[in-house]
Amino acid sequence: MKILWVFAHPEQRSLNGSLMAEGLRTLEELGHEHRVSDLYAMGWKAVVDGEDFGGSTRERLFVGREQERAYRERELSQDIRAEQKKIAWADALVFQFPLWWFGPPAILKGWFDRVLVQGFGFGVEGPGGRILRYGDGGLAGKRALIVTSVGARESGFGPRGIHGSMEEVLFPLLHGTFWYTGMAALPPFVVYGADRLTESGHSRDAAALRERLRTLDTTEPLPFRHESGGEYDEDLVLRPDVAPGLTGVSAHRARDGETPRGPRERERPGAPTRSRTR
Amino acid sequence: MKILWVFAHPEQRSLNGSLMAEGLRTLEELGHEHRVSDLYAMGWKAVVDGEDFGGSTRERLFVGREQERAYRERELSQDIRAEQKKIAWADALVFQFPLWWFGPPAILKGWFDRVLVQGFGFGVEGPGGRILRYGDGGLAGKRALIVTSVGARESGFGPRGIHGSMEEVLFPLLHGTFWYTGMAALPPFVVYGADRLTESGHSRDAAALRERLRTLDTTEPLPFRHESGGEYDEDLVLRPDVAPGLTGVSAHRARDGETPRGPRERERPGAPTRSRTR
Repeated sequence: MKILWVFAHPEQRSLNGSLMAEGLRTLEELGHEHRVSDLYAMGWKAVVDGEDFGGSTRERLFVGREQERAYRERELSQDIRAEQKKIAWADALVFQFPLWWFGPPAILKGWFDRVLVQGFGFGVEGPGGRILRYGDGGLAGKRALIVTSVGARESGFGPRGIHGSMEEVLFPLLHGTFWYTGMAALPPFVVYGADRLTESGHSRDAAALRERLRTLDTTEPLPFRHESGGEYDEDLVLRPDVAPGLTGVSAHRARDGETPRGPRERERPGAPTRSRTR
Repeated sequence: MKILWVFAHPEQRSLNGSLMAEGLRTLEELGHEHRVSDLYAMGWKAVVDGEDFGGSTRERLFVGREQERAYRERELSQDIRAEQKKIAWADALVFQFPLWWFGPPAILKGWFDRVLVQGFGFGVEGPGGRILRYGDGGLAGKRALIVTSVGARESGFGPRGIHGSMEEVLFPLLHGTFWYTGMAALPPFVVYGADRLTESGHSRDAAALRERLRTLDTTEPLPFRHESGGEYDEDLVLRPDVAPGLTGVSAHRARDGETPRGPRERERPGAPTRSRTR
């Protein structure tokens, strides 16, 4: 496989830096190719502005429209195009960051804001002029894995933990970014209690990360529903017979024992049904 | 009231810019004081790095620890301290931004990352050495309102909409940032279909925003649960008798008809009980 590792921590000599080194070594041992976008080391520009598009600043700026125009006319700034090339090259993307305010650090948020522009990451037309989203799109066929660390204990991120369950807290990334652009979102890899991690705790985490990387191409993705799978109506609302009575972000994930639906299964009739029964 | 308006859009001549102008006019008419942090206009630095703390870059950087040390020793960079002073001054904060990738633009994420440091925004000790969080903390007593715009239609953000319900998508901000630091999170003000907004649509939105600002000090906040309200156990997990059987982020919000609990009500015995029955 070809793997792009996006690293968003200001300090290489950190727990995160050491985990990345371990991860990259593992990928090499497995015979995978990898490339790294170390955003702090690159001095990555976090903020979307007119410089991204080479446009005039005297006219009113419509961000989404300008991003798409500049993408199609190859006028996006060089740093953005370089990242898009890396993404196009990769089979899988790893995003590693410390969880700050329950989301990615600004430098990584700005990577999504600036790189995944309309026409490239989303807003791509499929058969019949349908706009491809949620399970299909510009980045379909790729896999995405979050590797993150938090100071808090794991219990607070459990199903009834005060911070919210980790998968729901990460929903804007897992579902709203990865799945929206077509990427399969893998269950996130989370290091808890990072502020008080011991040597043995670190060894355990490093071993767990190696195992996750070994199974990068076989791990079952989160069973999010396909927009085009027939489970949503024309207003993009779940049909009444799908997860009846359920509301909230968790309704967009297939339940245990639920009958699989959606293009992924239709296109691969031999695929194991367990893909929807997690 | 004193209101700090944090604006995170690259273009003043936008729908968002025009809504802010309308909002500020309304605040003046109401006799409120306001200050504005227009992050793009200020050239706000989005990215946390060693420059924020005046520290050496030769030593390993522990971000959280350095942020707290520099805060206590008044060594945080001048731009950060200026924002902290504005926050301390304000009774209410308004955060206005276009929703990008289901979250704030990087420039605003970086405002949270850099300004709300340990010792100021959180990690503040209360009686008995208890760390104050979720309903109490460094910013307790203040109110926070999100004003955001999305291109998509409202139906997709409803209880069963494909994007996830808006309040759950914004949970990292509403609960994980505002409520975590002690601020009361008001129901967000959202402009839907912003990409195809007509003149009459804009007038309707402007009127709705004026009404929300008129009731800024009386609107009932989202009824999130207090960490110290007795509803969480020592592992920060909801006790079995609270919202029994419920999981996920919505469990941290009191239900219709649920008996109010938590310090807010205890401290204000005369407060109307409807505060917990939304």
